[in-house]
Amino acid sequence: MHEMKRLQDACKKNGPLCVGLDTDSSYIPPEILKNYSSETEAVLAYNKELIEVCSPFAGCFKVQIAYYEAMGLAGMKVFTETLKILRKKNIPFISDIKRGDIADTAKAYARAHFSGDFEADIITVNPYMGFDTLEPFTEYCKKENGAKGMFVLLRTSNPGMIDIEKQELAKGGVVLDHVGQHLLSLADVLAKSYGVSGDWEGSCSPIGAVVGCTEESDARLLRDKYPNIFFLIPGYGAQGGSARIAATLLDKAGGTVNSSRGILCAWKKDADLKDKRDGKTLTMDDIITSAQKAAKKAKEDLLEAVCEL
Amino acid sequence: MHEMKRLQDACKKNGPLCVGLDTDSSYIPPEILKNYSSETEAVLAYNKELIEVCSPFAGCFKVQIAYYEAMGLAGMKVFTETLKILRKKNIPFISDIKRGDIADTAKAYARAHFSGDFEADIITVNPYMGFDTLEPFTEYCKKENGAKGMFVLLRTSNPGMIDIEKQELAKGGVVLDHVGQHLLSLADVLAKSYGVSGDWEGSCSPIGAVVGCTEESDARLLRDKYPNIFFLIPGYGAQGGSARIAATLLDKAGGTVNSSRGILCAWKKDADLKDKRDGKTLTMDDIITSAQKAAKKAKEDLLEAVCEL
Repeated sequence: MHEMKRLQDACKKNGPLCVGLDTDSSYIPPEILKNYSSETEAVLAYNKELIEVCSPFAGCFKVQIAYYEAMGLAGMKVFTETLKILRKKNIPFISDIKRGDIADTAKAYARAHFSGDFEADIITVNPYMGFDTLEPFTEYCKKENGAKGMFVLLRTSNPGMIDIEKQELAKGGVVLDHVGQHLLSLADVLAKSYGVSGDWEGSCSPIGAVVGCTEESDARLLRDKYPNIFFLIPGYGAQGGSARIAATLLDKAGGTVNSSRGILCAWKKDADLKDKRDGKTLTMDDIITSAQKAAKKAKEDLLEAVCEL
Repeated sequence: MHEMKRLQDACKKNGPLCVGLDTDSSYIPPEILKNYSSETEAVLAYNKELIEVCSPFAGCFKVQIAYYEAMGLAGMKVFTETLKILRKKNIPFISDIKRGDIADTAKAYARAHFSGDFEADIITVNPYMGFDTLEPFTEYCKKENGAKGMFVLLRTSNPGMIDIEKQELAKGGVVLDHVGQHLLSLADVLAKSYGVSGDWEGSCSPIGAVVGCTEESDARLLRDKYPNIFFLIPGYGAQGGSARIAATLLDKAGGTVNSSRGILCAWKKDADLKDKRDGKTLTMDDIITSAQKAAKKAKEDLLEAVCEL
């Protein structure tokens, strides 16, 4: 049993929603922020509450390290504390780090995020510098060496994904097809090390892929092309991706659909909170309740879209 | 005046060597490590000494964040302390972070490494997710918003660079040519904001590129293609790149040639230290002296290769 399989099972049980803890302090109203001695203390308090109230609706959580790096050393401490809370609650979680480097440096990154203070169950990685850069991470995903998982960037959800990922190659296909082909063989080898082969029914490889839900035709194509790879699916909600496209990607081996700002900032659009927003009298309970409603709704939306597929 | 220009000037004055502080604690002999209360304390002490003794031979320093992340929270503290020492000594320095992400996340990374605890003069970035991912970083390089610099990955020094960077495109050229074309226009726009245009004589854009010195033909081609872009040049020494290839890349707008392990681990191969190595009686002074000799020699090698070009 590896972490990607644990994640797949959790998503089957609790639904495909991945709650993204991209917790920028600007996502907390000033009137709540000022009750804490620092922005990092406020972010940690918000994370704690979010994890508590959103867990019933989440297959997993994803922690985007950039927001914690932006808060400096104190931010990195909050990153560590957040991972600890998730581990203690036994919820699968992804560190969204998108690291990618060569040789000994890649080994250092693998050590950094698969052990020690920043240890995650599953990480995201950037394959741009070449497939050799993935090796130190895959070592931690092999049965004999550990049980971690990783999502490799395949088709991201930003407009700029056309710049490189979608460049047409002389040999046919686009760059991301070329990356996908390598992932497929890598995923296969690692899955076999866990005794999984053939159609991987109810199972998956520790190697997953990031596939955004921002274009219907891509979603269908990629789901069919990589039936056995579990997807991390960004782009839903705030980025304009739809539950219907996400549902396409949830087919076959399945995946987990990230929502970050849609949940973290739900209080900004919650009609029930209009008066308190205007009066600047929001409390932590208020924004947590909004986040919980948003998580519940996102889960229901996604499951409904899956049913309608 | 921006940080890339300051770096270019420093390399003209002090030579093109970039001393890489990829300071893994395994690069310090056990008999020295045991004199410190922790590996992080030892790494910081080694960094302090390295900066002191190598400065006369260095155009700049580069700090590879992966090695500090690998030591967890205490490692991040050492990262911050190392940057502080470099800033205090007024030596240009590069944080080798190779971050790359989208929208608000990219903004968070830019904030993380161009301000606060982890503030660097110049950073490295990964363009894979698209050119929109570079924008938040370039904001800090524009005259009106700041004076930072960044190196974008162009042609890396690892064998796996053939996997994506060298994939042939249907429209002609390879992926890195396509990236380079964008960089060139981006570099041009930003250079103009600083009043630099035309042949940029004795000047450069705040946008640089990472170009490894591991293949002669590539070096010639890329130097000619991007005459005005300042290069960060990895691959020299431990990675098998030669001073001659590096010298080719130092032509025109110039660049800075990184050496990390060749300096950090010079004590492992220093003939003068054989007895002490065998007897496990090395001291901090011994390994620092080796590092200094290696930095001096690297600088001389590079300048000689430039003369012979």
